[in-house]
Amino acid sequence: MHLFYQPEITLGHLLSEESKHAIRVLRLEVGTEIELTDGKGGFYKAKITNADPHECGFKVTQSSVICERAFSIHLAIAPTKNADRMEWMVEKCVEIGIEKISFIQCKTSERKTINIERLEKIVVSAMKQSQKAWLPEVSFMVPFQKFISESNDALKFIAHVDDKNPDHLKNLATPRSKYVIAIGPEGDFTKEELEMAYLSGFKKVSLGPSRLRTETAGLAAVMALNLVNQ
Amino acid sequence: MHLFYQPEITLGHLLSEESKHAIRVLRLEVGTEIELTDGKGGFYKAKITNADPHECGFKVTQSSVICERAFSIHLAIAPTKNADRMEWMVEKCVEIGIEKISFIQCKTSERKTINIERLEKIVVSAMKQSQKAWLPEVSFMVPFQKFISESNDALKFIAHVDDKNPDHLKNLATPRSKYVIAIGPEGDFTKEELEMAYLSGFKKVSLGPSRLRTETAGLAAVMALNLVNQ
Repeated sequence: MHLFYQPEITLGHLLSEESKHAIRVLRLEVGTEIELTDGKGGFYKAKITNADPHECGFKVTQSSVICERAFSIHLAIAPTKNADRMEWMVEKCVEIGIEKISFIQCKTSERKTINIERLEKIVVSAMKQSQKAWLPEVSFMVPFQKFISESNDALKFIAHVDDKNPDHLKNLATPRSKYVIAIGPEGDFTKEELEMAYLSGFKKVSLGPSRLRTETAGLAAVMALNLVNQ
Repeated sequence: MHLFYQPEITLGHLLSEESKHAIRVLRLEVGTEIELTDGKGGFYKAKITNADPHECGFKVTQSSVICERAFSIHLAIAPTKNADRMEWMVEKCVEIGIEKISFIQCKTSERKTINIERLEKIVVSAMKQSQKAWLPEVSFMVPFQKFISESNDALKFIAHVDDKNPDHLKNLATPRSKYVIAIGPEGDFTKEELEMAYLSGFKKVSLGPSRLRTETAGLAAVMALNLVNQ
């Protein structure tokens, strides 16, 4: 069945892009059963009442609530130069399971801006494709220092391998916790950034023996944190 | 330092594409230090002796051997309709760590052919990028039945979730083993294919609670098997 996203279910109609998709692309008709999520745990069955490609009306026939997960993952990552690689990573993180993705501006970051609207669309699409009822948050780019000073109330990790060969993330991540994991740019974090993170309670972790691209490291961290909780 | 792939180190020169890359693109000169791998565990330091863009000569100055891993992963997957998604997955699997990727033709497969040459190039490129000394094998498309009958001498898994909610791959994969994991097409394996696999000793496994696209499932399996061994 087709799943649509409408953050305000009580409006009784789909948003314009979703309406167009339902009526123009999928050619759904009045009476067709659809599924809806509000991205806040609400999951609904509904019937189309008005096949309008601008404002497709529906009537909810059944509703249920999907609980939040017993753990939460916040990935903070320096965006890659190539936007495709970031978009791919965002899609995969949503499929696998994530609560929040932040982009951080580090000293050696090559990219200074991100297209947040495009990323939000990818998040919605991946949420629908993987049949989830919680919409992960994507946040604007923040300077590394701001991100560090605002990260509270969570198990905080920073991916960095040095001579001391830190423990693997999977061994330090206690199940059923709130996690923040920071992944640096291709040019890595600077010494000052690392010091700042350690002082704020971030623990250095390894993601395994392979040398990974930034976006692969982001996904590997999210997969490891999900696995620890499965 | 730049890493090049030359399966026959004793030839003393790079292959034509690598030569072009070294001399035309990177503009390396006689005397420049490079690194080489033969993709069979050999890792070499060398100096360029002839800056020929067709046949770049080198002289090995140091050699070492990287052992094979204490475990091995063979991913057998039904290719997705969209070739990009398969290529992305191949790149990521090589970065994370894999020994062999096979493509299987299932009853509901949407794609019947794969561009093996293009995939081999991606494998070489990802091996170099992640500084590995072993070149993973990519095999031609094989019918599901043939794949099943030829899979011996390994812990064999097939990703499939049914009412009986199978165990997660990470709980069934004993560390330091040879693994084969089969991932089906978007339309899933047929009942007959599953029966055939079970009869040949394949164990049904889950990859977690999320509904994953084929290529995400492939990567998730490879990441889980690597994590079990870290």
